[in-house]
Amino acid sequence: MATLRVLSDQDVRKCIDIKGTLTAVEKAYVAKSSGLAHLYPVIDEKLHNDKAEFDIKSGDWLEQEIIGAKLVNWFGDNSAKGLDTIVGLSMLFDSNTGYPLALINASYITSMRTGASGAIAAKYLAKPDAKVAVVIGTGNQALFQIAFLISALPTIQNIYIVNPRSFDKAQKFTADVSQRLKMVIEDQIDPENKLWNRRVQAINFLASADVEKALVVADVIITATPSRGSLISKESIGPGVHINCMGADSVGKQEIDEELFSTARVFTDDLSQSISLGEC
Amino acid sequence: MATLRVLSDQDVRKCIDIKGTLTAVEKAYVAKSSGLAHLYPVIDEKLHNDKAEFDIKSGDWLEQEIIGAKLVNWFGDNSAKGLDTIVGLSMLFDSNTGYPLALINASYITSMRTGASGAIAAKYLAKPDAKVAVVIGTGNQALFQIAFLISALPTIQNIYIVNPRSFDKAQKFTADVSQRLKMVIEDQIDPENKLWNRRVQAINFLASADVEKALVVADVIITATPSRGSLISKESIGPGVHINCMGADSVGKQEIDEELFSTARVFTDDLSQSISLGEC
Repeated sequence: MATLRVLSDQDVRKCIDIKGTLTAVEKAYVAKSSGLAHLYPVIDEKLHNDKAEFDIKSGDWLEQEIIGAKLVNWFGDNSAKGLDTIVGLSMLFDSNTGYPLALINASYITSMRTGASGAIAAKYLAKPDAKVAVVIGTGNQALFQIAFLISALPTIQNIYIVNPRSFDKAQKFTADVSQRLKMVIEDQIDPENKLWNRRVQAINFLASADVEKALVVADVIITATPSRGSLISKESIGPGVHINCMGADSVGKQEIDEELFSTARVFTDDLSQSISLGEC
Repeated sequence: MATLRVLSDQDVRKCIDIKGTLTAVEKAYVAKSSGLAHLYPVIDEKLHNDKAEFDIKSGDWLEQEIIGAKLVNWFGDNSAKGLDTIVGLSMLFDSNTGYPLALINASYITSMRTGASGAIAAKYLAKPDAKVAVVIGTGNQALFQIAFLISALPTIQNIYIVNPRSFDKAQKFTADVSQRLKMVIEDQIDPENKLWNRRVQAINFLASADVEKALVVADVIITATPSRGSLISKESIGPGVHINCMGADSVGKQEIDEELFSTARVFTDDLSQSISLGEC
């Protein structure tokens, strides 16, 4: 076997930043939609009465001479054991020889990739002067969605944080979100993160107890919850509002009122996956 | 991430032998057919105009507390580059936490596993006094099929070696097969391989230029070629002959006359895979 490069979580955090990830993910989306990169079928297996999941996502990008596979497990009961709920490994293979090139801890890279996907959608589809974002969800991904959104959309000024089940959690998240965002690197060539810290400081974060009230003022809405029912009614969404539906990633999950799809314009990164696993 | 055990090709060769592999593979088949172990859908992607293939095979065996995945690549042009044609990595995950346990070079373990599968089939389905085997194919897997067959079937005495395209290759394979078989370990508790060497020495290996002539005397036939057309006609197979069809493992591959299936009793380790990828 050829030498296999192994990248730990620390290694990955040193390698990637918001700007680079946005560029790379956008480039990958363009390659995929041009037929230059291909996704293989998704392995999506439920275990332990749906309290755990074993997924494999894979594909090739021959122009970049790589085949990639990510094996990512979600084990809901892990947090009670003091373990990470999501554990993932990515592997890269040389697409000319099939030889493995790298084994990469996929936790951080997954959070960053998903953050970038949302921000790229908002960059092209939200109102160009979008000022107010509403983030529904207060988990790990909410943080990354916010980080990438404010990097990609310089007009965003106010962000409402909503947790539909717990205002307390929304308040707690809001209290330290600025501090946590400062830990995320915006740009590897600005290692002291000066510009980024200024951008984060300029955002008003507001915990909201009332989902509908927050939605009325929104230009951009991000849903990032494990919900299995609608969190957003059709009535609360005005014209031109952009919604990033990040949560619904497997059969049975839902965040959006299905009625909304009758008037909304829907964009998806992968049609077949959106139909089988996503909100559509 | 928890500590990941990494097993190189050398490590794997030190860990497994024929007897242990036969026992483990048979145990796994029993678990699978009892519904205790599960296979997930197979990823089977062709690349470079069918000159390369990227496969992922995965499944769980919760009783053993493991989820496993094997990423195995076949790149036909590799041999011309002095590289291995098949490169594989197996990964084991703790099925209670999803954490990775081991990363294993899967080349040798794949050869051993496939050898064991054939021998287990022959052990239960061939005539109890089977004396003559015909092996069609002179590649790497032919060697493992023979090794496991003579270990599992102590009555086998004569083995005809056939290469349908090249008698020369059949002769070359036959010339050193005994020597190569002695390199395979029969039993870890007999590290000097004394009993095994005696067993190998007792077998008559005969290169055959005529497939049909060889088949007439066969009790057991093993096909292990990359053929895409029938190598065995219905007429040449007498009653009670056992055929292990090892080669046809993806869409388009075939080794057996389809007419033969009208009179044969067919056994398969995985019905849906046999129908979609195999000889059925």
